[in-house]
Amino acid sequence: MYEILETKERITADNDAEAAKLRAMLKEKKVFFINVMGSPGSGKTTALTHIINALKDQYRIGVMEADVDSSVDAETISKLGVRVIQLHSGGLCHMDADMTARGLAGLGLDGLDVVFMENIGNLVCPAEFDVGAALQMMILSVPEGDDKPLKYPLMFTVSNVMLINKIDVAPVFDFDIERCRTYVRRLNPEMEFFPVSALKGEGLEAFEAWLINRIETWRKQA
Amino acid sequence: MYEILETKERITADNDAEAAKLRAMLKEKKVFFINVMGSPGSGKTTALTHIINALKDQYRIGVMEADVDSSVDAETISKLGVRVIQLHSGGLCHMDADMTARGLAGLGLDGLDVVFMENIGNLVCPAEFDVGAALQMMILSVPEGDDKPLKYPLMFTVSNVMLINKIDVAPVFDFDIERCRTYVRRLNPEMEFFPVSALKGEGLEAFEAWLINRIETWRKQA
Repeated sequence: MYEILETKERITADNDAEAAKLRAMLKEKKVFFINVMGSPGSGKTTALTHIINALKDQYRIGVMEADVDSSVDAETISKLGVRVIQLHSGGLCHMDADMTARGLAGLGLDGLDVVFMENIGNLVCPAEFDVGAALQMMILSVPEGDDKPLKYPLMFTVSNVMLINKIDVAPVFDFDIERCRTYVRRLNPEMEFFPVSALKGEGLEAFEAWLINRIETWRKQA
Repeated sequence: MYEILETKERITADNDAEAAKLRAMLKEKKVFFINVMGSPGSGKTTALTHIINALKDQYRIGVMEADVDSSVDAETISKLGVRVIQLHSGGLCHMDADMTARGLAGLGLDGLDVVFMENIGNLVCPAEFDVGAALQMMILSVPEGDDKPLKYPLMFTVSNVMLINKIDVAPVFDFDIERCRTYVRRLNPEMEFFPVSALKGEGLEAFEAWLINRIETWRKQA
């Protein structure tokens, strides 16, 4: 079961200030918050399903599914036995810090270690709004093309880690992983890459090990 | 060769009024204007290449390539020997009527019969802005999934015609064309569908015949 929350945009003075407040609050509560971004159909929900199954014995997990409309993703995730809330953006193409704060309040942070937010499917708008996350994760899928860092540079600049998903169909789509990596490195030399097939579960173990290490490092910091 | 125009957003009182003015002006000049929308990587540029090649002996064609950044698409289209301009949205996720009007002025309408605008790759924002087009065309590609009409209903509501692209990989992605069509029909009973593979050129002849018929009907109307 999951709740549906209408998190329409309010006019807020300063998204960055709101995000900083949120980040401090999450740090104090020791909740590691991951903002998951990517195009419609890039495989966010499928990847999350695998990742949640891999982490849920070790961490208490909450998930916010943000969508313009519908609750199909919350439906899918709720079957994993973790705490889930569906957020509706009221037509908006992104979540901002204020909407995220209301989503986190609706989800409830007590008793949680890790929270994922699946942002609206979009390579443009979500990149523009800091939502207070400890980790910015993005998914680019092979059928979208290896030139996407050229066209949507901000998303690749603000993310810390990138899954290149659907690598099983890379030959069909003439997607060159090295070319894509080269484009991304020019924008963001620190980006971490994991080529995966979320549907087949390939490559996700390496990402999950990296993520657990990242969470543990974060938790040890004062 | 092509020009690059920075069409950043201006605050305009009323997008719908701007769009209506634009539509009337285009009608008077007898320029059929097509707004092409779809996710990043759905195949907009590849489909346009095929369509332009099929139509360019019959019509004088202009193309506006709208992107957040980069000019890779204008580069591709300029090789077809039609008039092309690259529009940069200044980070914005959509084109509005005012930005479109400035794009059309930059392109120049004299001596043109048909103008395509490849909108920013995005299933959310472009749907919200009437840009004065005579035809709203969208592309959904198979790897995005057949559930997208549930999640991004507005795009499927405001479009007149829909290419379902990359049908050659439908079996790999478990995309059910009939299921997708059923979801769309609930939102928009008038939608026209064309399953195609833009890369392989399959199915586009049927769409091009339909489009020519639509253009001719429009031109005959007073």
